[in-house]
Amino acid sequence: MRVVAVIGSSNSTEEEYQIAYEVGKELAKRGLAVVCGGRTGVMEAVCRGAKEEGGITIGIMPSYEGNEANPYVDIKINTGMGWNRNPIVVASGEMVIAIGGHWGTLSEIAYALILGKYIVGYKTHGIEGVDFARTKEEILGKVDEFFKTTAGN
Amino acid sequence: MRVVAVIGSSNSTEEEYQIAYEVGKELAKRGLAVVCGGRTGVMEAVCRGAKEEGGITIGIMPSYEGNEANPYVDIKINTGMGWNRNPIVVASGEMVIAIGGHWGTLSEIAYALILGKYIVGYKTHGIEGVDFARTKEEILGKVDEFFKTTAGN
Amino acid sequence: MRVVAVIGSSNSTEEEYQIAYEVGKELAKRGLAVVCGGRTGVMEAVCRGAKEEGGITIGIMPSYEGNEANPYVDIKINTGMGWNRNPIVVASGEMVIAIGGHWGTLSEIAYALILGKYIVGYKTHGIEGVDFARTKEEILGKVDEFFKTTAGN
Amino acid sequence: MRVVAVIGSSNSTEEEYQIAYEVGKELAKRGLAVVCGGRTGVMEAVCRGAKEEGGITIGIMPSYEGNEANPYVDIKINTGMGWNRNPIVVASGEMVIAIGGHWGTLSEIAYALILGKYIVGYKTHGIEGVDFARTKEEILGKVDEFFKTTAGN
Repeated sequence: MRVVAVIGSSNSTEEEYQIAYEVGKELAKRGLAVVCGGRTGVMEAVCRGAKEEGGITIGIMPSYEGNEANPYVDIKINTGMGWNRNPIVVASGEMVIAIGGHWGTLSEIAYALILGKYIVGYKTHGIEGVDFARTKEEILGKVDEFFKTTAGN
Repeated sequence: MRVVAVIGSSNSTEEEYQIAYEVGKELAKRGLAVVCGGRTGVMEAVCRGAKEEGGITIGIMPSYEGNEANPYVDIKINTGMGWNRNPIVVASGEMVIAIGGHWGTLSEIAYALILGKYIVGYKTHGIEGVDFARTKEEILGKVDEFFKTTAGN
Repeated sequence: MRVVAVIGSSNSTEEEYQIAYEVGKELAKRGLAVVCGGRTGVMEAVCRGAKEEGGITIGIMPSYEGNEANPYVDIKINTGMGWNRNPIVVASGEMVIAIGGHWGTLSEIAYALILGKYIVGYKTHGIEGVDFARTKEEILGKVDEFFKTTAGN
Repeated sequence: MRVVAVIGSSNSTEEEYQIAYEVGKELAKRGLAVVCGGRTGVMEAVCRGAKEEGGITIGIMPSYEGNEANPYVDIKINTGMGWNRNPIVVASGEMVIAIGGHWGTLSEIAYALILGKYIVGYKTHGIEGVDFARTKEEILGKVDEFFKTTAGN
């Protein structure tokens, strides 16, 4: 199964929520599973979109019980590690999409760069190494390009 | 999605491998996903059985890349944490099945007990709190009983 | 600095507390630092004993703030990882002393065995690979033997 | 014991190394222990400076064995968690000093901000929330101010 990590704030703006939701739908249409931090905001939006198109959603949860998962998470990975779970989110995606985001997202961008992951960013931290997109279409164009290249199809 | 954690040695005996393989098939037939440590031995066997029946398999991997996953793992959760990933395996299952096993399995049994998980054991460490089964049928009877009780169906 | 990991229950018996306290004193007299889980019971006792003899005590704390540390911890390593910190405790000692203990201690014994650490046990889990002692004197005799051997003095 | 976390690249410039070395000396003179990632570059420099003034140095190590520690680390906390150890470094300091740095340092700055730590930065990532200093004297002035405020002396 091919998996994309989607990161962003649990307190997203409406616009970020909408973009994440639509990105979730499009990832699911492409047969790509979503891994995220499993909570609210961007994480909820991308899971919600993915589920509406029959995709698979994985939440890397802060607690041991996973009760904080948003209702669109299929598979809860219960880490019990709080914010220390962040590197696991990005390590579990073949590539990373960052939408908006605060300090948690910054830590995930840093780990994605440490691990050599390709990162597409939308209105997120201005960190060198992130490939910025200005629209949903640009995000998805970069995703398609990435999977065309790495999968060889 | 309902998930069962299956733990056991990466160096399993043939008999443990066979039991784990058959347990994997039966879990998949019941619509239960499998989470495990993603490697060889019991972990490979249970994933292999589950995949043959169309189940979903999740591997909590030691490395950041997950290249050590057995070929029957669908979803690789790449932790980069080596053996420290063990509590995540058991925390991510609603219940735990232990088949054989060495010190890694002992650490997982301990964490399952810390977290209050129900554990069915087959030829594993003689730890108080583990509910021992002597056959594949007994293991599955206990699994069915657990899900009947907790799911209310 | 040479460091010994001391593990045991946060709900120790009075006798376990007393033994851990005296072991802490003796470790400090030998110039050995103590690393433990930083909480109550055996962990508190060993830190208290060590501090009374001018030793150094290190607590591997469950929280990000370390406010749960017992008052005899000098250095708080704040993990934010709850019980997942357990392997760090045993990995940070050259050898391990287990006094009494419940499931948390069992997980630490398992990790100590995974990591190939020498473990002296006192009224703890009956796990193969633990070297059992019946008195404080026996514990310390085994500690002295270990450091004589590994330090070459 | 009062502890300052010092973060920065394992591949530091000579100037960063020199600054970190002098900061290490000054922290030790103030009776402040140093916690860091335990490796080369800025981490080595700050430990080296601290040891020359009789300070205490703590390394949060990537491996289970800690053999990668620089020779100026007194206490090795062996995590076995690779880069996932980064949040532990900053959580274990009362405040954080960032000197230069690459993606690992960025992840630590992000975690310091998540955890609400005060961060002094010298030629490091231009992240909002970091209090920038341009000289060794400015770094130490900010450290003194911080401890005056939080310790009430």
